[in-house]
Amino acid sequence: MTQRTFTVVGGGPVGALLAISLARHGYKVGLYEGRPDSRATSIYQGKSINIALSDRGWTSLEKIGISTEAKRGAIPMYQRTIHDVDGTLSEIPYGKEGDAIWSVSRGGINQKLLDIADEDPNITTHFQHRLVDIDFESATTIFSVKDGDEKIVQSDFAFGADGANSKVRRTAHNFPRFSYSQTYMPECYIELNIPANPDGSHKLEKNALHIWPRKDFMLIALPNPDGTFTCTLFLAWEGDPSFEALKERSAVEAFFETNFPDAMDYLENPVDTFMEKTAAPLYLVHVFPWSFHRKVGLIGDAAHAIVPYYGQGMNCGFEDCAELHSLIAEHEHDWDKIFPAYEKARKPNADAIAELAVRNFREMSDLSGDPRFQLQKKIEAKFSERYPELWTPLYSMVTFSPETPYSEALRVGDEQRAVMEHIMALPDIEKEWDAPHVMERLHELATDAFGAG
Amino acid sequence: MTQRTFTVVGGGPVGALLAISLARHGYKVGLYEGRPDSRATSIYQGKSINIALSDRGWTSLEKIGISTEAKRGAIPMYQRTIHDVDGTLSEIPYGKEGDAIWSVSRGGINQKLLDIADEDPNITTHFQHRLVDIDFESATTIFSVKDGDEKIVQSDFAFGADGANSKVRRTAHNFPRFSYSQTYMPECYIELNIPANPDGSHKLEKNALHIWPRKDFMLIALPNPDGTFTCTLFLAWEGDPSFEALKERSAVEAFFETNFPDAMDYLENPVDTFMEKTAAPLYLVHVFPWSFHRKVGLIGDAAHAIVPYYGQGMNCGFEDCAELHSLIAEHEHDWDKIFPAYEKARKPNADAIAELAVRNFREMSDLSGDPRFQLQKKIEAKFSERYPELWTPLYSMVTFSPETPYSEALRVGDEQRAVMEHIMALPDIEKEWDAPHVMERLHELATDAFGAG
Repeated sequence: MTQRTFTVVGGGPVGALLAISLARHGYKVGLYEGRPDSRATSIYQGKSINIALSDRGWTSLEKIGISTEAKRGAIPMYQRTIHDVDGTLSEIPYGKEGDAIWSVSRGGINQKLLDIADEDPNITTHFQHRLVDIDFESATTIFSVKDGDEKIVQSDFAFGADGANSKVRRTAHNFPRFSYSQTYMPECYIELNIPANPDGSHKLEKNALHIWPRKDFMLIALPNPDGTFTCTLFLAWEGDPSFEALKERSAVEAFFETNFPDAMDYLENPVDTFMEKTAAPLYLVHVFPWSFHRKVGLIGDAAHAIVPYYGQGMNCGFEDCAELHSLIAEHEHDWDKIFPAYEKARKPNADAIAELAVRNFREMSDLSGDPRFQLQKKIEAKFSERYPELWTPLYSMVTFSPETPYSEALRVGDEQRAVMEHIMALPDIEKEWDAPHVMERLHELATDAFGAG
Repeated sequence: MTQRTFTVVGGGPVGALLAISLARHGYKVGLYEGRPDSRATSIYQGKSINIALSDRGWTSLEKIGISTEAKRGAIPMYQRTIHDVDGTLSEIPYGKEGDAIWSVSRGGINQKLLDIADEDPNITTHFQHRLVDIDFESATTIFSVKDGDEKIVQSDFAFGADGANSKVRRTAHNFPRFSYSQTYMPECYIELNIPANPDGSHKLEKNALHIWPRKDFMLIALPNPDGTFTCTLFLAWEGDPSFEALKERSAVEAFFETNFPDAMDYLENPVDTFMEKTAAPLYLVHVFPWSFHRKVGLIGDAAHAIVPYYGQGMNCGFEDCAELHSLIAEHEHDWDKIFPAYEKARKPNADAIAELAVRNFREMSDLSGDPRFQLQKKIEAKFSERYPELWTPLYSMVTFSPETPYSEALRVGDEQRAVMEHIMALPDIEKEWDAPHVMERLHELATDAFGAG
């Protein structure tokens, strides 16, 4: 049998990982990326896009046989450090002792995966190949290359791993019975920077994700290995305050000084940066199906762009790859079975993390605001510590329990919320939150909802 | 002041009505339609697309100053006639005595509105002008005309009234922060026909909408003035039974004979038609915003394509026009105010009728199936008759209460459902449904929920 061929459109982290997976299953893979090779040029320099990787991401890499040597250079964040307006700091651990999410540079992880792909004789990478069109029946792709020339590529199968603005997906808008949605969030974002100390050390606690929660908007900071922090300001596009409303320099200055006084000691020209940069939008993409004629599939953000508030975007994309990796073996390379099984397995999970991520904006941006909400978290944490078999907090299910599908985490989390509404309605809960009768009542309700009986 | 100009893309019923409204407000309107003039050619001949118009539609026409002389030729349907599998007929009135929805031919109403438009010196109609592109900042449109020539049209403002597959809307997909979704229903449909008797009379009760409800699928029939009925079969695209599963002639025959035995005496070659026709998809479109740069707007199906199960699609489009008609007066032609006010007023109502229409598939297709559901309707009808100030059934709010916005109907309907869940949970409700204590309890609950106090 001749070796079957795959075209992978998009050489980001998900595209590169997919190419590696397919190659390891014996397919001949062409990996096509519109931009230049980030390892040869410096497109990521000075633009350190940070993302959080957590257990789902690492586990998926391992399933595809990539050692978590990729973890080197990643910075574990064990806690959120909350910055109040008055400069008070408080710490909220992400999970149990030792649980961490990892700050990684998108460029760095992409380059590592491309290096691994380059070592594989089954993979050929092509940069500066921008997709112009794709035929879903034949998996034929047309790329525009330098000087406007076009290259036609014929493979047995193709995947669109070309990100939130996927050209493969947009071409599918004309596919019969293709459902799609693209929904903008009220918030947009810009990136800011906190430089390193002169000695290269971090100006703020290194092993933490810093949050300045201001209810309707927030600033966050993720550590980089070079001592800097990459910060993101999430703020409504319109209304008060908003990117649209903050046009005057004096107003922008007042906005930062009022809301982030302690951060002003660290941030590098935040007012200039705010004035110069265009705020980027945040949007959700839902589509179905994720495959066409059993020849072409969608994966990662191309299939399910989500918002960044749960730090799960790349984790979810890597899980797509790991699921596909095991389905190829399970269905013995029969793509008439693999494509439907893949979209059936992954679609409910992508929908669930999309929903969870939207909800998490309120959770993050209100972290220091609502004392009752904080109390509820405290009760949950205490109960979970005592009865781990009955209760894993939602954040831990999503972040530290790769064996729990996102859809299961969403479902259980909703049931937990209903239970906690009962608990929070108990008289004097603020004073008696750790009294024995509260734990007993919670144990009763949790046993009813989640107990083995 | 020079007369301001409008380009209306799409010469269907909503586009024609919008053009008339704008012209009556003094604008100079170019009305552009891609297809040939249906009055000169015969594009509607033999293809009698039927729709239901009801009070919202007629009221909207009146608001724009069009006499309901348009009602002539429409056939009032006072009831649903339910056809059981065993041929038993039962009748369920649509509302109070005299309440009717009206079967109209889409072509007929379109032609009447085009005739009215042609009489208006402010309107120029252009057929066989297919939109190629639109610039949202300048409201410049480019049309492809005969022989591939292009015509550039410059107006002060433009509207896309170009239907569910709107080119204006699809062009807006690249507009910054434009949210959109297109969602396919599991069902598709084909149209069938019941011919007239030799003397031109109807083979079935004329003043009724006929339904063959079969739970997961259904057949419906609407009367035409010429004695025929236009029938629509709604059936899942895939699964069992489905359009995809019914490929063999023998299977299609068995499907019709098993499920619609009485209709087989009337339908004109249903098996041939089923085999020959391609089932058409049903989909929902949600987008926002509905206007761009305060220069270009969307209206009707172009802004909010819905499914046909509530018979409200054209009614909703006509309401858009009526709303805009009154906003132009209210805001004294200031389109910086009219566009935002228009989309703010209409978007929640379009969303509500979209949701109500999706839900109504189950309601229609299960009409003879669930005795408890029928009992609930009976209790509601009786209560509503006795306490009309406390209870208007949801169907009547949507269909016969144009003063109640769709969004209000949806909200009240959901509260009514919660009340009826209590009532249906009363012991022995099947036997005692019209006992005094049931009506008393319902009166109590309804007064709590909807009473003036």
